[in-house]
Amino acid sequence: MKNRRSFIQKMAAGVSAAVLAPVAVQASPAVGLSGALIHHVFFWLKEPGNQQVRKQFEAALKKLLKVKTIKISHIGIPASTESRDVVDHSYSYSLMVVFDTREDQDSYQVDPIHQAFVAENSHLWNKVVVYDSVDV
Amino acid sequence: MKNRRSFIQKMAAGVSAAVLAPVAVQASPAVGLSGALIHHVFFWLKEPGNQQVRKQFEAALKKLLKVKTIKISHIGIPASTESRDVVDHSYSYSLMVVFDTREDQDSYQVDPIHQAFVAENSHLWNKVVVYDSVDV
Repeated sequence: MKNRRSFIQKMAAGVSAAVLAPVAVQASPAVGLSGALIHHVFFWLKEPGNQQVRKQFEAALKKLLKVKTIKISHIGIPASTESRDVVDHSYSYSLMVVFDTREDQDSYQVDPIHQAFVAENSHLWNKVVVYDSVDV
Repeated sequence: MKNRRSFIQKMAAGVSAAVLAPVAVQASPAVGLSGALIHHVFFWLKEPGNQQVRKQFEAALKKLLKVKTIKISHIGIPASTESRDVVDHSYSYSLMVVFDTREDQDSYQVDPIHQAFVAENSHLWNKVVVYDSVDV
């Protein structure tokens, strides 16, 4: 647990440190993200087919990643995976950001960069769903 | 893009390689996951307050992470973040797994470990929502 937590910190620190430390992994060959808060947001745009809107929104999402408490990020669109009842491919964009703590997520919410993102772009979407997950 | 893709591959490879290579990052201090497929699943259990069910389900989720195509993983529960209309805190468990490619996600779906997970545990949940996201 302690090692895994420091993995995230080292990944973030690695940007300047240039070399990342060995990763501690238990049981599975996959790298487990532990000690983190995963904030996953799904946006349904009012005009998902409008290329100008998409361009603006993608640029806005990239700008949002400048918030300093974000440790890992991913800006996505629905994958072309198999259509199954349980898979929701209907959203326009996803934003996954990983924080070290709940406090970092809280400060992200009130960060001027995040507030500007909402003020400048909320007219573009008609639905947003957010999931915040922490370790079991 | 090329560098970022290899970051994920190196993270996974790092388990045996012991040392990870420098991370290429643009603009933001956050580490961007690019060239990946993020498969995020949210489960609503029939008996979310039943501790025996929770124990079984948590063990089952951990077992599921043995599927070899999984590169990064996180097993979660709702965070105690602020209650806002857009935040869904109602699910019981989340599972985020990251694959290198859509093909790896497809092979995960038919992997005997995943099929056993569904066969042995699907009676425990009454709702599942899946989001599959790839790079913009």
